[in-house]
Amino acid sequence: MFYHVKELQYEAKVSRPDPEYAKKLQEVLGGQWGEISVMMQYLMQGFNVRANKKYRDLLLDIGTEEIAHVEILSTLIARLLDGTSLECVEAQENAYKSDPAVAAVLGGMNPQHAIVSGLGAMPSDSVGNRWTADYIISSGNLLADFRANLNAESQGRLQVARLYTISDDPLVKDTLSFLLARDNAHQNQWIEAIHELEQEAQDVVVPTTFPRECQLQAASYDFYNTSRGQADADGPWAQGVAPDGRGTFNYVSQPVPYGGKAKLSPAPKDVYDTPPSY
Amino acid sequence: MFYHVKELQYEAKVSRPDPEYAKKLQEVLGGQWGEISVMMQYLMQGFNVRANKKYRDLLLDIGTEEIAHVEILSTLIARLLDGTSLECVEAQENAYKSDPAVAAVLGGMNPQHAIVSGLGAMPSDSVGNRWTADYIISSGNLLADFRANLNAESQGRLQVARLYTISDDPLVKDTLSFLLARDNAHQNQWIEAIHELEQEAQDVVVPTTFPRECQLQAASYDFYNTSRGQADADGPWAQGVAPDGRGTFNYVSQPVPYGGKAKLSPAPKDVYDTPPSY
Amino acid sequence: MFYHVKELQYEAKVSRPDPEYAKKLQEVLGGQWGEISVMMQYLMQGFNVRANKKYRDLLLDIGTEEIAHVEILSTLIARLLDGTSLECVEAQENAYKSDPAVAAVLGGMNPQHAIVSGLGAMPSDSVGNRWTADYIISSGNLLADFRANLNAESQGRLQVARLYTISDDPLVKDTLSFLLARDNAHQNQWIEAIHELEQEAQDVVVPTTFPRECQLQAASYDFYNTSRGQADADGPWAQGVAPDGRGTFNYVSQPVPYGGKAKLSPAPKDVYDTPPSY
Amino acid sequence: MFYHVKELQYEAKVSRPDPEYAKKLQEVLGGQWGEISVMMQYLMQGFNVRANKKYRDLLLDIGTEEIAHVEILSTLIARLLDGTSLECVEAQENAYKSDPAVAAVLGGMNPQHAIVSGLGAMPSDSVGNRWTADYIISSGNLLADFRANLNAESQGRLQVARLYTISDDPLVKDTLSFLLARDNAHQNQWIEAIHELEQEAQDVVVPTTFPRECQLQAASYDFYNTSRGQADADGPWAQGVAPDGRGTFNYVSQPVPYGGKAKLSPAPKDVYDTPPSY
Amino acid sequence: MFYHVKELQYEAKVSRPDPEYAKKLQEVLGGQWGEISVMMQYLMQGFNVRANKKYRDLLLDIGTEEIAHVEILSTLIARLLDGTSLECVEAQENAYKSDPAVAAVLGGMNPQHAIVSGLGAMPSDSVGNRWTADYIISSGNLLADFRANLNAESQGRLQVARLYTISDDPLVKDTLSFLLARDNAHQNQWIEAIHELEQEAQDVVVPTTFPRECQLQAASYDFYNTSRGQADADGPWAQGVAPDGRGTFNYVSQPVPYGGKAKLSPAPKDVYDTPPSY
Amino acid sequence: MFYHVKELQYEAKVSRPDPEYAKKLQEVLGGQWGEISVMMQYLMQGFNVRANKKYRDLLLDIGTEEIAHVEILSTLIARLLDGTSLECVEAQENAYKSDPAVAAVLGGMNPQHAIVSGLGAMPSDSVGNRWTADYIISSGNLLADFRANLNAESQGRLQVARLYTISDDPLVKDTLSFLLARDNAHQNQWIEAIHELEQEAQDVVVPTTFPRECQLQAASYDFYNTSRGQADADGPWAQGVAPDGRGTFNYVSQPVPYGGKAKLSPAPKDVYDTPPSY
Repeated sequence: MFYHVKELQYEAKVSRPDPEYAKKLQEVLGGQWGEISVMMQYLMQGFNVRANKKYRDLLLDIGTEEIAHVEILSTLIARLLDGTSLECVEAQENAYKSDPAVAAVLGGMNPQHAIVSGLGAMPSDSVGNRWTADYIISSGNLLADFRANLNAESQGRLQVARLYTISDDPLVKDTLSFLLARDNAHQNQWIEAIHELEQEAQDVVVPTTFPRECQLQAASYDFYNTSRGQADADGPWAQGVAPDGRGTFNYVSQPVPYGGKAKLSPAPKDVYDTPPSY
Repeated sequence: MFYHVKELQYEAKVSRPDPEYAKKLQEVLGGQWGEISVMMQYLMQGFNVRANKKYRDLLLDIGTEEIAHVEILSTLIARLLDGTSLECVEAQENAYKSDPAVAAVLGGMNPQHAIVSGLGAMPSDSVGNRWTADYIISSGNLLADFRANLNAESQGRLQVARLYTISDDPLVKDTLSFLLARDNAHQNQWIEAIHELEQEAQDVVVPTTFPRECQLQAASYDFYNTSRGQADADGPWAQGVAPDGRGTFNYVSQPVPYGGKAKLSPAPKDVYDTPPSY
Repeated sequence: MFYHVKELQYEAKVSRPDPEYAKKLQEVLGGQWGEISVMMQYLMQGFNVRANKKYRDLLLDIGTEEIAHVEILSTLIARLLDGTSLECVEAQENAYKSDPAVAAVLGGMNPQHAIVSGLGAMPSDSVGNRWTADYIISSGNLLADFRANLNAESQGRLQVARLYTISDDPLVKDTLSFLLARDNAHQNQWIEAIHELEQEAQDVVVPTTFPRECQLQAASYDFYNTSRGQADADGPWAQGVAPDGRGTFNYVSQPVPYGGKAKLSPAPKDVYDTPPSY
Repeated sequence: MFYHVKELQYEAKVSRPDPEYAKKLQEVLGGQWGEISVMMQYLMQGFNVRANKKYRDLLLDIGTEEIAHVEILSTLIARLLDGTSLECVEAQENAYKSDPAVAAVLGGMNPQHAIVSGLGAMPSDSVGNRWTADYIISSGNLLADFRANLNAESQGRLQVARLYTISDDPLVKDTLSFLLARDNAHQNQWIEAIHELEQEAQDVVVPTTFPRECQLQAASYDFYNTSRGQADADGPWAQGVAPDGRGTFNYVSQPVPYGGKAKLSPAPKDVYDTPPSY
Repeated sequence: MFYHVKELQYEAKVSRPDPEYAKKLQEVLGGQWGEISVMMQYLMQGFNVRANKKYRDLLLDIGTEEIAHVEILSTLIARLLDGTSLECVEAQENAYKSDPAVAAVLGGMNPQHAIVSGLGAMPSDSVGNRWTADYIISSGNLLADFRANLNAESQGRLQVARLYTISDDPLVKDTLSFLLARDNAHQNQWIEAIHELEQEAQDVVVPTTFPRECQLQAASYDFYNTSRGQADADGPWAQGVAPDGRGTFNYVSQPVPYGGKAKLSPAPKDVYDTPPSY
Repeated sequence: MFYHVKELQYEAKVSRPDPEYAKKLQEVLGGQWGEISVMMQYLMQGFNVRANKKYRDLLLDIGTEEIAHVEILSTLIARLLDGTSLECVEAQENAYKSDPAVAAVLGGMNPQHAIVSGLGAMPSDSVGNRWTADYIISSGNLLADFRANLNAESQGRLQVARLYTISDDPLVKDTLSFLLARDNAHQNQWIEAIHELEQEAQDVVVPTTFPRECQLQAASYDFYNTSRGQADADGPWAQGVAPDGRGTFNYVSQPVPYGGKAKLSPAPKDVYDTPPSY
């Protein structure tokens, strides 16, 4: 069960309204790697844990923090939209035609911030795609999922870093500096959790519990150079012992097919596919 | 530019048609973590590389291999649908009402395999969601993206392993044993590529080039226990030096808000939001 | 069966082309609360009526009118795009770089109005999301659905009102004044239809026919104050007899869990979830 | 900011695993009117409130409770999937072909519960559509949004009632009886909140603050009978004073167009539309 | 403007309820090539016509007929769901476990037909994907769009034919025989309309008005054999005068790249892409 | 199986960066009719061919070429984004407020090109919708699918032509002139392939193998004038022998319903639909 306090986990203030920046900031609220994604991903993973309860606690603690991040960014976006009167939007329309300097104020505003949300944050990204659960995963395998989480925090911090650089509002930057710090903490934390699981399993390949004899050993460490030229032949992915310690990489410079030609049987007549006689 | 040979990279044979298994197998062709996802993700990342050309080569070599995996699975699914006459589907309808044993043959078939694709594979998952680019990422930051790739191969191999267990067709299992092996190879390879980039950067936090002084140091290594109870207090994510070597984890057992209460200004009247006077 | 006359239900004229406004106006054609949504929602509800035929007639009469609204808005948008030559779009590109005043004319045009629809209306919202049936509902329960309809007309009129304020074209405003009037009529009409159904059922809680003894009476009128502070304690939702007349609101200032700790059993080994032993 | 306790708001127990019912129950977790929808809708509305703070508190209190409902249903679904070994799924495949009685146990299981989520709940509906923010609204106008909320609770309780009837597991029914009770409470509460806002505004038409003289009065209370036959002529939507008290309904039995024929100008040649000369 | 009569364009009767067939029939109502698609595609194309008014009339006449087809199929689906009590669905659950013969009656029912639509048709396909405007096109170029329409009627009739074969209900088949006939008529009609436009333009390549000298003539009639083996060398697409009469096909058996190696410049440092020095 | 060479099929150079044009060009990479669509459509159709192997070869040869087009456009878009520093984006923000001339440089940039893809191409259209397999079809019936392909090449060339006109960069135009040429070739080639299949079948109506006596002959050549006025009565779709040679068009100037009134039975009580007694 969950509880709320009215204070924000961190301040979300702005020096001045900036609707165009509000549009861009939507990316890290409702975009593919935004706070809604990590909130929903960690909560769903946490609710589904069938392993040691410390992992459930870990996921739900960070997931609960992420709800607060959704709150922070929603508040920040709403404040960047403060005071945007529709007369102003109308003026912009006309200004575009006569006085570009005035027009520019709202030039890049997301029209849905005026028409749909009434100057509120939306569950959408910076170009208006609505958030979708296509973005998240909860697989029941924590090593796989913690890698998903590490990736999400990596992509997320990358995007916040880019948004930090674009902004020149010290208060906005202050809020982002908090989110950057938390993404720093969370990347480090998922790395530790991944290491712990890898050590427990004494393996690095997901799923670690699948019987290795059931995979085709002959192809398990090959690198297929499917192109002309071998610029990638010297990388650590192409030679030496593999990280799982169970094989050695083999660079195949001219890979050939193992299989025969693909060919399908004709369809029964009543499926109305094109007959083979044509 | 790309070229094709008519042979499959690996055999894709079946012992007998099995439309219900065909439905399930769609997950690793057109699902969130299926072969279309890794094909499109690696190709887009490869086309966008602005770093050392060996990474472009690495991405496009593996991406080109993944097109062949899409071909293998499409062929396998089509063969699992061989010979499914619509009269048989009609029989099933009736059988459901009289003879369950007959009915069961096609009981779990995806109706779109009959109605839409005419016994062909579809760019969809096991419940029929069409593939979407929501599933993939190409960020320009290779450390972030290689983590995405490691995750994709982890989730993908996990799903193939589950499908392997469900099947009892030795030929289908043979094809899956090849895909399991390739996912084994690719997980190992992305791990190596990640290590190389981390060593180059002497950091593990994406983006490694963002100035650390711009993030709020005070919050960079905290773990906030946002719940009652501390089952996660003893994990390696809660104490000791962080993997980036730049800080020490700090477990905050009773975290409190840093910010003030969230409160927004009234909207201009012409936005037609609810006025604050109500 | 349906018939068409070539006259518009109401004029859809413009004083001058305005591609940027055309982009915004898409919201009330193909957006979440646009005319396509109410058209499709009322038609589907009407086709599915299993209750008194007057409700089928009511839904299909209004639904049929909404097709005419789709026609009006499509025409209006196309006329706002009149005469937009691609040379002009090219000029804009260059103008952006040299003469902002000229550039501004097309500054906010939706590029798909040029590239995709050839200066025609699209089944999309103001940021380009394609219309989806995710927006609509037909549940078979008319009290529920008429509430959905009242909401749709409320959200729709709100958006048209905002677009009315933004426009300064008297002819566009004239068309919108008609749509505002119809949304006024329809809100009133759905309110009446809702009241009729509530009176018939002598209840206001959907579904009115579900046996009340099957719900947990003890929790049926509680308000749980899940936060710190009680700003919402004095509202009519927190005290007094409830609108259904069957209970009295109970404000629970410090709600506690009724249930035990969530805990799941381990997964069977062959699912390849993380084992509990880790 | 948010906090979590490990106890569930209400019990989520099952008498026995039932994967087919788990599939159906997904509808009220991740479907259009499921708990994720109301959770996200109330939180986003709450974060965006620019009106009296009691409404923010109201929305966030109920929104925070809804996170707990997501937790309850996720737990319930996971428990309905307890112990589903993949060997069992394989047996089902074969059983379909030989022993329908055995096959039937897992006959209607969602394959993604095995392959994707590893026996965990998913952010999806009962046929596998992933949750999308297309389902929700936060408009800044609370009268509009509370109507959306009343509708959501109505559709939601309707679906839970149907699922209650389908189930024969007394423990599952017990959990559902709690959710039915909460939907009862919330419908009553939104009705009260709507009445308060209507009384404040002395109007029932959203947005109440839009100047009525800007809408076409002549069409504001008409009912257009766009069909042949007048089964809906006697309803309260067709005669008498309208609920807003500002006009009287007017049933137009044979409505005619107010506008002229729709006709568009030719496109500039360089758009490559079909020329009018053809 | 549009009008409705209460009679169906064609009968939509059933011999007996059949929920499983109702599920399949959804494909041609709300699927990619279903009646909603052609209805919306023709209406949007018709509203956007900037060419000769006869084409507007043609599109809106057929588009208006398609609304009636949506009505027919919605009615047919609802009737196939007649009388499906939820007790029956519950019985099915239990029957799956004890008496497969009973269970089979509702075995393949779409659960949303019970839980969401209350035994009504849905704007979805046979696996539950909601209809989306991604399926349709209105480009302003009628030769292109009539080809889209011919394709839609071809795919649509193919799917109805498959559904006709699956059914054994003579009344359902009677309704489908009407839809098959209309798709026959419409395919013929779009073919004629295409021919007329091609003759007007004296060209078959869309857009016919684009200046041919602006395309790279050297590549305009080549066929690139990008694979090993030349099974397609003898087709009419590989030799002889092309249908546009302006060139001769040229089969290139071993195509080579015209361009140089792809290589991108490094990103500016503040984008935080991976630096080229790594 | 597939192979790659590092050279582009055609040059993809730019005279200067142009982020706004990069945004527009996304339409023909990741939009409904972009190169990803034809690549995926032809490959899936090719993998699924159950007819003569020359068609498989034809589809895979062109499909393999389209992968190279995806590569070309991705490269072109990335180069149009060359050198876009985020400081520049920040400058733009400020410039909007003070110096429109500077601001204009990046005025119409897609923010995701900076924040998400780090100056790389995206699998999205010109307004940011992610690519989805909703756009494509593989039906098993090649006459239907080749019509889909002809349409795709028609819509695609139309969009490239529009983008060609908008551009003033001779190098970009040079690349587009190649794509225009290939779309010219492919339209011609699909036309030939269609003709061959029609001649084989001696029919033009898909599916040609469906027994004609199963469709309602009486309605197979009618044109229903569902509107008032007969502007479309003189077209070749309304009179004369139909292209299939099996019937003569019949223009029905005042079509009437063939069916009775739509009316549905009441729902069982336990579905909680609105009862008919209300």
